[in-house]
Amino acid sequence: MISQKDCQRMDEEDPMRGFRERFVLPKGTIYLDGNSLGPLPIGAAERVQAALHQQWGEDLITSWNKHGWFHQPLVTGNKIARLIGAAPDSVVVGDSISIGVFKLLTSALALRRDRLVILSDSGNFPSDLYVAQGLSSFLADGHTLKVVAPEAVEHAITEEVAVVMLTEVDYRTGRRHDMKAITALAHERGALVIWDLAHSVGAVPVDLMAADADFAVGCTYKYLNGGPGAPAFLFVHPRLHKDAMPALVGWWGHAEPFVFSSEFRGADGIARQQCGTQPILSLAALDAAMDVWADVDMAQLHQKAQKLCSLFITLVETHCSKFGLELAGPRDMAARGSHVSFRCPEGYAVMQALIARKTIGDFRAPDIIRFGFAPLYNSFVDVHDAAMLLADILKNKAWNRVEYLQKKAVT
Amino acid sequence: MISQKDCQRMDEEDPMRGFRERFVLPKGTIYLDGNSLGPLPIGAAERVQAALHQQWGEDLITSWNKHGWFHQPLVTGNKIARLIGAAPDSVVVGDSISIGVFKLLTSALALRRDRLVILSDSGNFPSDLYVAQGLSSFLADGHTLKVVAPEAVEHAITEEVAVVMLTEVDYRTGRRHDMKAITALAHERGALVIWDLAHSVGAVPVDLMAADADFAVGCTYKYLNGGPGAPAFLFVHPRLHKDAMPALVGWWGHAEPFVFSSEFRGADGIARQQCGTQPILSLAALDAAMDVWADVDMAQLHQKAQKLCSLFITLVETHCSKFGLELAGPRDMAARGSHVSFRCPEGYAVMQALIARKTIGDFRAPDIIRFGFAPLYNSFVDVHDAAMLLADILKNKAWNRVEYLQKKAVT
Repeated sequence: MISQKDCQRMDEEDPMRGFRERFVLPKGTIYLDGNSLGPLPIGAAERVQAALHQQWGEDLITSWNKHGWFHQPLVTGNKIARLIGAAPDSVVVGDSISIGVFKLLTSALALRRDRLVILSDSGNFPSDLYVAQGLSSFLADGHTLKVVAPEAVEHAITEEVAVVMLTEVDYRTGRRHDMKAITALAHERGALVIWDLAHSVGAVPVDLMAADADFAVGCTYKYLNGGPGAPAFLFVHPRLHKDAMPALVGWWGHAEPFVFSSEFRGADGIARQQCGTQPILSLAALDAAMDVWADVDMAQLHQKAQKLCSLFITLVETHCSKFGLELAGPRDMAARGSHVSFRCPEGYAVMQALIARKTIGDFRAPDIIRFGFAPLYNSFVDVHDAAMLLADILKNKAWNRVEYLQKKAVT
Repeated sequence: MISQKDCQRMDEEDPMRGFRERFVLPKGTIYLDGNSLGPLPIGAAERVQAALHQQWGEDLITSWNKHGWFHQPLVTGNKIARLIGAAPDSVVVGDSISIGVFKLLTSALALRRDRLVILSDSGNFPSDLYVAQGLSSFLADGHTLKVVAPEAVEHAITEEVAVVMLTEVDYRTGRRHDMKAITALAHERGALVIWDLAHSVGAVPVDLMAADADFAVGCTYKYLNGGPGAPAFLFVHPRLHKDAMPALVGWWGHAEPFVFSSEFRGADGIARQQCGTQPILSLAALDAAMDVWADVDMAQLHQKAQKLCSLFITLVETHCSKFGLELAGPRDMAARGSHVSFRCPEGYAVMQALIARKTIGDFRAPDIIRFGFAPLYNSFVDVHDAAMLLADILKNKAWNRVEYLQKKAVT
């Protein structure tokens, strides 16, 4: 049996323990939802202050040059590049993930005009599927989205497929695709691949160049801690910079935006994937959050992520299996991301009970309780205490639906 | 001759003078670029603080419900609706103007599948044209963007035109289209109309319902003072809510976003035009800026805007005409927005000289110096002093290019 004391020792020996001090973490809360919204980095609060008062307040319009607002999406993009194995100047920040998917999907389809199938899987985040459905409906020319089971993807990559569009780590179960193998297979069959890294970046090692990925998008408000609704990022492999052109373009992607020419001419490189003006206050928070990541050893991060997940699975299975909990997603750490989900009868009410007692994870229909483990600020004691609280709630049936639904105000 | 003293008296008699106190305005600066980036409203700074510390920092993921983050784009949209004569629940905030144009353009084209021409004019903001060009290139099916002179628009609305896409107030000259007449003509010929209100909202009265406008987009970081890169707004006439469907959709536009269904089903109403997650910190600033507008009488605003512009034209023509300055755009106040531009030889260097002396306007190639007049915080003395400084610079040839280019760091 692993005790809280054992976990304290693990924390003392944790080479990453110092990072916790760089975040605002509410007292008494065990926060296991950083895979949905990461906490506030102390540096981000300071940076937004400066953007508000010195930049917007005092320097006003001159800040576009003076404080580098205009190039911020490329500067921040380069900070993200290191975490995902992207080449320099191949990542840009801006808009939302869904819009990024749309830009990349249209870029890909324009490069494969003789093919009409967009292939995805049922483990993809629904919004990515919606993007493909919305585009196909609009085109009304035979383009279709084909959705298969995650394990059937490889078989489904036929020569009709223009683009394979997948989320690497399943938002519900944590199951992780083999990016390198699927990309290689797709290329062999003449298709392009878009990888959504929403649940990968900052959680598992990603090496886009090694995988020879064509396109990728990702989220910055989860493990990267960039702030609520922080702009997404988008990657295009350098070999495609010249030819990839999205259907959605705008003046920030123009080769000479301030000439105000009436003819669009795409910028060279990744800048072309930009469209309109970006939200500077939100970008300021994100850029500051990325400065924390500059000090992170990604191999160390992944080691700790695996230990946290593995410990949680062990503790929950030891103490909660008898209440009907069942691990969703793979047990093999190499085949998963850094969140752990269990199928749990009365899962919604159980999660409400956890939250009411300040242990915050989330629920995904129909019956999944989900816990994200962020190596930068989650401790082994966090993991222990969360598992024990879950066991206690299940044992005492403290998940009584009515009681906890009444407390929903606190969630 | 109108003296500074005369202008002081006008300020004393100005019923809107109290609004100036609600903004941060750097000491000694005359800010005439609020048509590009509005200044910081004091309430916006406070609201962003709360969003950072209480909401993101303390309440974390629970803020999506607790602090209404998810519905913020619709709440803020309703605050904007009053300023543009839109029906309740027909405006939503989010993404950038260019993305808004793309959503509405695809919505319109899907409603006019038998027509292939997108009509616009050379007075439109280039990014709007880029959006249409990017989409046409991608479609590669005969869709084309036709760009005519502003005065030739009405004649060019033929029965091949699917959608007319115009910016109401020209970003360079301030020339204003007759929204009602053009919309009526377009409808008569079976076309839909998208109005870009970037330089209208907060400057001139707009009545979208009275004009029977189909679609509109607009900017929130100019006269509305929503902050650098604040999300744009988008309007769809209620009669089109059921049928208008953009090519770009996402989970925020789903009828039941938290069911995480794998099939897209558009929300009823304007919510359908949403796509992905929005930048909450930037939205917080914008929403607070809109609270200033709740207290504004729009008729009073327009009266003052016209007086400010008219005074500036009079003063500049009196004192600067001999140096070759020429008014760009109409003299008739009813036919213009709230910025005033002059064609000016050496315009770039002249604007640099003004900025070096803390009077901030901007330059638009090839030779336009542009000044925005924002009735909420610009005074009649601002107008007087700016015109006098301009005269002084021209008289003393203080626009020596080399000297002021060296000072470019301050711009």
